[in-house]
Amino acid sequence: ENLAAQKLYEGKAKILYATDDPEVLLTYFKDDATAFNAQKRGTISGKGEVNCAMSQHLFRLLEAQGVPTHLIDCPTSNTMRVRRVSIVPLEVVVRNIAAGSLCQQTGLELGTPLSPPLVEFYLKNDALGDPLLTEDRLRVMELATPDQVQQLREMALRVNQVLSEFFNQCGITLVDFKLEFGVDGAGKLLLADEISPDTCRLWNQAESDPNRRVMDKDRFRRDLGDVEAAYQQVLQRVLAQSV
Amino acid sequence: ENLAAQKLYEGKAKILYATDDPEVLLTYFKDDATAFNAQKRGTISGKGEVNCAMSQHLFRLLEAQGVPTHLIDCPTSNTMRVRRVSIVPLEVVVRNIAAGSLCQQTGLELGTPLSPPLVEFYLKNDALGDPLLTEDRLRVMELATPDQVQQLREMALRVNQVLSEFFNQCGITLVDFKLEFGVDGAGKLLLADEISPDTCRLWNQAESDPNRRVMDKDRFRRDLGDVEAAYQQVLQRVLAQSV
Ligand SMILES: Nc1ncnc2c1ncn2[C@@H]1O[C@H](COP(=O)(O)OP(=O)(O)O)[C@@H](O)[C@H]1O
Ligand SMILES: Nc1ncnc2c1ncn2[C@@H]1O[C@H](COP(=O)(O)OP(=O)(O)O)[C@@H](O)[C@H]1O
Ligand SMILES: [Mg+2]
Ligand SMILES: [Mg+2]
Repeated sequence: ENLAAQKLYEGKAKILYATDDPEVLLTYFKDDATAFNAQKRGTISGKGEVNCAMSQHLFRLLEAQGVPTHLIDCPTSNTMRVRRVSIVPLEVVVRNIAAGSLCQQTGLELGTPLSPPLVEFYLKNDALGDPLLTEDRLRVMELATPDQVQQLREMALRVNQVLSEFFNQCGITLVDFKLEFGVDGAGKLLLADEISPDTCRLWNQAESDPNRRVMDKDRFRRDLGDVEAAYQQVLQRVLAQSV
Repeated sequence: ENLAAQKLYEGKAKILYATDDPEVLLTYFKDDATAFNAQKRGTISGKGEVNCAMSQHLFRLLEAQGVPTHLIDCPTSNTMRVRRVSIVPLEVVVRNIAAGSLCQQTGLELGTPLSPPLVEFYLKNDALGDPLLTEDRLRVMELATPDQVQQLREMALRVNQVLSEFFNQCGITLVDFKLEFGVDGAGKLLLADEISPDTCRLWNQAESDPNRRVMDKDRFRRDLGDVEAAYQQVLQRVLAQSV
């Protein structure tokens, strides 16, 4: 079979392929890295394998904790078979500690604890720059009913609970992360996409220096160096921690 | 008395002066116009008098309808005596029809009716570019408690009800507008600042052309011409309509 012939979509970090089963997609994790709405581009060598293996491990953990995900299995080290869903065009962001755009937009100081955590919705639309949405805007844009917003919020908070505890056991603080959800053929909401150092802010608890502690894509965004080593270190700690 | 000696603050559109009474301020309405976070600057001749007279008329209307405002009286045609308040650093925006930044940020089409209306909160902070806030961000920034947010929302919707009906009687559609609120010495929430073609989007119901119908600061923002005439026309219709 010729994979190229079955390519459905090439995104910034992954490629989606159709399979013989119309309900199953194959996701290929690339080493390509982008930041700032794809204005900055580069390569993080080994990233595809890290993100694939880490996503697999965390999806399994979440499944075991009752969160339904799109994961089926990983036929190779950088491909994942997933249930095909209709993606809700939202980036659902959970924040435990103020960082990134939240600080830039509100003036909140980096590191401010957010308790209870913030759950935020951004429109998944590169052309519009992934703008922040209010619940009113979600309603008006008919992206999600108030009920669905409530369900997404609850699932996101449940994911946060499970992952925060897990990363804590790895000696890592889960600062914030982005989730994508999709609806399967039966109308069920599944956690989709990936969970990786590309989509999480992760701080090494053994380091207090605000640059040295960074173990995620911020090393690439902010040119902090040792990007590959940080990704490998995260994966090593994640895989060492039994689910 | 030398007014200059008592100047407290010069903003983009108004100057605040102290008076002999510490609970009373004098507001001078300037002809200066700015747009796009003060990147665009100009003058709209006669604007100060229009905005002062229109604000006075609409504040009186709102008072009569049970909405407390900061208005005391207008000693001259472009000055207003107001109760001094501690301004809540939020711009409260009510939207009946999609326009402006809402369209740019969401892709909603200009003119889309919003029913029920949207009530949005923006941080009043020029340095940060007046960013949109969610209710969660309001809470975390300790700008307003959930109770205060609820009270601001209800007051803004009440203002919208009164003003929408009033402008409709003037043959004008109230598309959206920005309000500022403040807390007086007794802890009471008052409607403050101004209500004018600078702070409202107003469409002439007698015109269907999307440019010709515009009667507000969008004529200045978008270089549509006849800015002064539009401001005068709005004031004339407002003053002709008894409260
Ligand atoms: N189970 C799934 N079914 C269908 N689409 C998915 C699924 N999981 C993720 N996707 C989508 O596949 C794409 C993944 O590729 P990515 O490189 O992350 O794209 P993008 O640049 O659009 O973020 C995303 O658009 C994501 O929404
Ligand atoms: N009753 C009031 N008491 C104190 N401050 C007020 C009152 N009404 C309005 N203000 C404030 O006075 C200033 C009015 O001037 P303006 O030119 O609109 O300023 P800005 O450029 O900051 O918007 C605003 O900062 C507004 O918040
Ligand atoms: Mg993606
Ligand atoms: Mg102002």
